Amino acid sequence: VREPLNQARATTGSSRRALSAAPEGTVRRPARRPSPRGENLARALRCIADGDGEVSRADISARTALNRSTSGSLVDELISAGLVREVGIKVRSTAGRPPTSLALVDAGPAGLGIEVNVDHLATCVVDLAGNPRYRRVVTADQRGRDPRDVLRSAMALGAAAVHEAEEIGLEPQGMTLAVPGLVDVDRARVVLAPNLGWHDLTVGAQLDPVELGLPPDAVVTLENEANCAALSERRLLRSRTSFLYVHAGIGVGSALVLRGELHRGRNGWSGEVGHLTVEHDGPACGCGGRGCLEQYAGQEAVLRAAGLPSPVPGTSTGPGAVSELVKERVDGGDPRMLEAVGRAGRAVGLAVAQALNLLDIELVVLGGIYYDLGPLILPVVRAEVASRYAGARWAPPRIVTAVHGLDAPALGAARSVVQRIIDDPSDWLDAADPHRR
Amino acid sequence: VREPLNQARATTGSSRRALSAAPEGTVRRPARRPSPRGENLARALRCIADGDGEVSRADISARTALNRSTSGSLVDELISAGLVREVGIKVRSTAGRPPTSLALVDAGPAGLGIEVNVDHLATCVVDLAGNPRYRRVVTADQRGRDPRDVLRSAMALGAAAVHEAEEIGLEPQGMTLAVPGLVDVDRARVVLAPNLGWHDLTVGAQLDPVELGLPPDAVVTLENEANCAALSERRLLRSRTSFLYVHAGIGVGSALVLRGELHRGRNGWSGEVGHLTVEHDGPACGCGGRGCLEQYAGQEAVLRAAGLPSPVPGTSTGPGAVSELVKERVDGGDPRMLEAVGRAGRAVGLAVAQALNLLDIELVVLGGIYYDLGPLILPVVRAEVASRYAGARWAPPRIVTAVHGLDAPALGAARSVVQRIIDDPSDWLDAADPHRR
Repeated sequence: VREPLNQARATTGSSRRALSAAPEGTVRRPARRPSPRGENLARALRCIADGDGEVSRADISARTALNRSTSGSLVDELISAGLVREVGIKVRSTAGRPPTSLALVDAGPAGLGIEVNVDHLATCVVDLAGNPRYRRVVTADQRGRDPRDVLRSAMALGAAAVHEAEEIGLEPQGMTLAVPGLVDVDRARVVLAPNLGWHDLTVGAQLDPVELGLPPDAVVTLENEANCAALSERRLLRSRTSFLYVHAGIGVGSALVLRGELHRGRNGWSGEVGHLTVEHDGPACGCGGRGCLEQYAGQEAVLRAAGLPSPVPGTSTGPGAVSELVKERVDGGDPRMLEAVGRAGRAVGLAVAQALNLLDIELVVLGGIYYDLGPLILPVVRAEVASRYAGARWAPPRIVTAVHGLDAPALGAARSVVQRIIDDPSDWLDAADPHRR
Repeated sequence: VREPLNQARATTGSSRRALSAAPEGTVRRPARRPSPRGENLARALRCIADGDGEVSRADISARTALNRSTSGSLVDELISAGLVREVGIKVRSTAGRPPTSLALVDAGPAGLGIEVNVDHLATCVVDLAGNPRYRRVVTADQRGRDPRDVLRSAMALGAAAVHEAEEIGLEPQGMTLAVPGLVDVDRARVVLAPNLGWHDLTVGAQLDPVELGLPPDAVVTLENEANCAALSERRLLRSRTSFLYVHAGIGVGSALVLRGELHRGRNGWSGEVGHLTVEHDGPACGCGGRGCLEQYAGQEAVLRAAGLPSPVPGTSTGPGAVSELVKERVDGGDPRMLEAVGRAGRAVGLAVAQALNLLDIELVVLGGIYYDLGPLILPVVRAEVASRYAGARWAPPRIVTAVHGLDAPALGAARSVVQRIIDDPSDWLDAADPHRR
């Protein structure tokens, strides 16, 4: 029996911590057990991160159950290390000196996310609080290109993003590359990205932090696109909700979040909802199967079913353009588009019902193109789930659209970088000397 | 956002501990935080339970990292409480006094499991080590009967089992009732058992421990049949393996075990693999859906597809009889039966592939009638999974038959009772006085 503990237990933050994408798949910073002080620093920092600028030193003492003097000195250490700032006076009705509110810094440590997708490349830089501060999307079909050229373009976009971020006082500390497919995080290898036509592709050697303008020991990692996108759902992660996040573009991916943490599975390949079977004898899929959800509910499948080529001549392409086109046609009463959207919604509903029957989770979040198409497909998805989920009558699940759309993967990828600092600020504090920064 | 922590985090042992099936759904023994000594007792007891009669006091000291004197006194306490016994000399090549091996007692505390199923009722009593010591199966179709009469029969069988167990020196300390369907454990309610024709049925009032001959404060609980069956896979649970357990009888249920613990889901309804969609426009199912796995791969579906009525006139019914009949017909070259079994295998493979695409787990265990039919259906299941699981080429999953067959639910139900004692022996120790026993 293969022991799955390490992989399966890995949380978003801690797994990535140890899984750098060094060319030979070596781990740059071995996972270590944090010191008690390091753990307390992390708890205090998490309080401040979750507080959205509304927590005081006293709140931190109350929420961490550390005494005031300890929590005060932790806060001072976080401030002098450049992770936390005082943001002014928090007004209260009680007597005494009004407390100072604390927030994560909005300059300094930052995260870079890069997304390689079928019809676009995207970059995003977030500050330590996870707020997007720089974004760029380049719309271009990547399917005909040599994967090395695609990665070269992505790295150039990443380097430009780092440069622009530095102009506004941000210092990206790592990069996560989001790819639509099965990835081997440990070996920095794309196992299968059917819609890109990539398979068995080791990319580690091309992901050089120095080339990106990052510190030489910066952690650069590879991650599944939908897993990254799910990390953009900040409120759900904070409340430790269990949910299935479905992200549709050309393909359809998903991420499974159990109690606020990604369920990555044995190989990190969980959440391949795009390859759930909708019709056992349906059209062939790039994964080798037949009748997969992607063949009904991805953006090209919808266009195809509506009798349109992809890309549609005379219309712009790239994120958002397809959903605009779909909405226009639906508004115009195009019967083929209406049927194509209905078919996509029924297929999503069928696939979602499979996940609910298996997992009994409370929430499904539809992202990517479904973010824009929500009003069109949600009713169909919900009706299909109601008829196929065995528990629907007693515990109807919530099915909602995501907070972010096609920009979610790059955003979530960037957030995964700063999340590492928040989960374990010790590394940062150890290195927080003027020579490094 | 509904907070799912308590339910979703609940482990097999600890969840049941607090979830007694009192008539009003009250909780008889509120969960409490065990004392440090209680935790150490549990660790020592678990060592002994996992050691299969091959651990010494020194081994326990080594495995728990407790010093010899502490672990020795814990063992003495477990022995005098009647949970552990010395089983003789463990021969070693090293010098010094040979150590005494320790094992769980084979008399005294025991567990009772009762299974209510569509075509049979079953009981099982296990000793503290989880070994089955008494079993009985009554074959009879339960579908036409008033659910209260069915429960009355089940309770009478349970009382007989307790009586017989006492004859051989066992003292059952609780009962778990396994039911094929969605159950609300907290409220002791069968929400939906489509193949029995039961729904929204509160059974708590009928599950009286005294009527069973159990101690008045014994914990009696309701649990899904496939969840119980999965608990019969002792080796996998001990090694904290992640696996999907599929249990087929009249219907098809499953249990999802992640790192050795049942993933119960929000309502305790996870693992409803029997209601995964095989054909979106397939035959109607008792759950309200269409084309569910049960309609292809349950034992009645197989007989129906082979052109046979169920029960088959002139043959015996009940657990095992159907698989015997199927094997005979296949051996005889009956083309309709061959096709029916192939169809069942393909349907199971399709459903299993859905689970693997979603969850990326390493192992699938096929139980119930598949235990007997393994050689017939495994090759078909594996081929279908290979063509539909996106990661199959890189990480082929293991698909195997279960260790136990149709007897697994009652066995696992009984084991869940003794597992509670092993997980937290403090209650037992508190009550270990001669007046009680």
